[in-house]
Amino acid sequence: MTAFEKLRIQNLSGKYIAIGLDTDINKIPQHLKSLTNPVLEFNKLIIEATKDLAAAYKINFAFYEAEGKTGIENIEKTLSFIPSNILTIADGKRGDIGNTSEMYAKAIYDRLQFNSATLNPYMGEDSLKPFLNYKDKLNFILALTSNPGSNDFQKSEQKKGGFLYQSVIQKVIRWNTFKNCGIVFGATNPDELKSNIESFGDLPVLIPGIGAQGGDLEKITGILGKFKNINFLVNVSRGILYKNNSSEFALAAREELLKLNNLIKSYL
Amino acid sequence: MTAFEKLRIQNLSGKYIAIGLDTDINKIPQHLKSLTNPVLEFNKLIIEATKDLAAAYKINFAFYEAEGKTGIENIEKTLSFIPSNILTIADGKRGDIGNTSEMYAKAIYDRLQFNSATLNPYMGEDSLKPFLNYKDKLNFILALTSNPGSNDFQKSEQKKGGFLYQSVIQKVIRWNTFKNCGIVFGATNPDELKSNIESFGDLPVLIPGIGAQGGDLEKITGILGKFKNINFLVNVSRGILYKNNSSEFALAAREELLKLNNLIKSYL
Repeated sequence: MTAFEKLRIQNLSGKYIAIGLDTDINKIPQHLKSLTNPVLEFNKLIIEATKDLAAAYKINFAFYEAEGKTGIENIEKTLSFIPSNILTIADGKRGDIGNTSEMYAKAIYDRLQFNSATLNPYMGEDSLKPFLNYKDKLNFILALTSNPGSNDFQKSEQKKGGFLYQSVIQKVIRWNTFKNCGIVFGATNPDELKSNIESFGDLPVLIPGIGAQGGDLEKITGILGKFKNINFLVNVSRGILYKNNSSEFALAAREELLKLNNLIKSYL
Repeated sequence: MTAFEKLRIQNLSGKYIAIGLDTDINKIPQHLKSLTNPVLEFNKLIIEATKDLAAAYKINFAFYEAEGKTGIENIEKTLSFIPSNILTIADGKRGDIGNTSEMYAKAIYDRLQFNSATLNPYMGEDSLKPFLNYKDKLNFILALTSNPGSNDFQKSEQKKGGFLYQSVIQKVIRWNTFKNCGIVFGATNPDELKSNIESFGDLPVLIPGIGAQGGDLEKITGILGKFKNINFLVNVSRGILYKNNSSEFALAAREELLKLNNLIKSYL
């Protein structure tokens, strides 16, 4: 099964949330900190409590690289807890010259066996190609991100018309020969989502920025609901992981996810 | 001493080459492959043979991440072989939302203690800020890269005039409050270097693309030589590392570096 099909099945069964495992040792419950590997135990308990309700788990590499080789081992071990029908996303926003990107793609898709990755388009087509050559994977390319800095370049107007992020979307559609591309579109941009969604074609959309970053779930899913051909994932990280800081954190994460799933169903 | 000062001293002593330790286990000499850790031994011998002539060593993370936790350990151990007066560059082209970039910055500057890093500007100011807050480090931000894909977005014309990469350079100048920013400008763009170099101010320039990628060292350094205020590094990776595949590889790397240093001196 391709990663795209996996996502489609999740969406068809009413699951739209990607849980971002941005696990920060300074933010996890105090009672876990005396364990040998608190981050891994935290991830394990979160996954156990949410795996029947989550569409995907997104692992942001920054949080693991900050822990050195233990962090890298924790990525591998965390992946082993995730059931195979759930999409796994390597959130590294990679992109480099061809022979280098090939190494990143090997690390993410061959060694770690992720289903999907986030990529940065700044260096253009040949920097993404090694990832796009994996036909069964799903490559989410940054279009319009959820942070304030998206104004600096992504929203710069092009001489030929449109904004830079719109040029990125148009190129991604052209690069999507194997139906293995998608885009990242931040939830903090509902107006832009509304005015651009018809240009997405059938590209799946990964939507970060709900929760801590202030994106409006109702607005965003209200817009997406009008386009039944579009598969999407709403990423929530801190809003689920750190909902409750007691020994009940995993249950609280589950309840938050359940609440979000129900909200999305009601908005769609 | 700041990383900027370190670079300046290297340049003043006639050293301009950054050796890119893009160490690929498939490309190193056969006789090393039976060792426990061939990549580390290769790096050690290359550094020993070149450390009196190199201005910097650039470690491209992709090549190490492809080897999992051994790779991460190899980054740490490789750094321990590099004398403290030589600049160390973490080539990861990172960039993410604020709280995530902070983790990347911690990994690169606090944990691994690199002097310098390459960054991707697509996500804008707040995605780079956690790196820019390290006053003593040197942050090379991608402007115009050396690969064919630089045509896709970096060379797109802006409505307000100029190309995207020129907007990036202008922003980097504004972000350079602590004199800890530089730019990446690919050697495959000599015409663009010539027509833009006056706009760089005193930003240091990291120049990849010489050697395997076809950049012209004579043209590039001829242009740089006219602007004595500009500190720069020419990165060479494959052209030095794999000059010779026998047991003499380290000596061959040294001779190639010596040759390149002399060429640069003659062109400047």
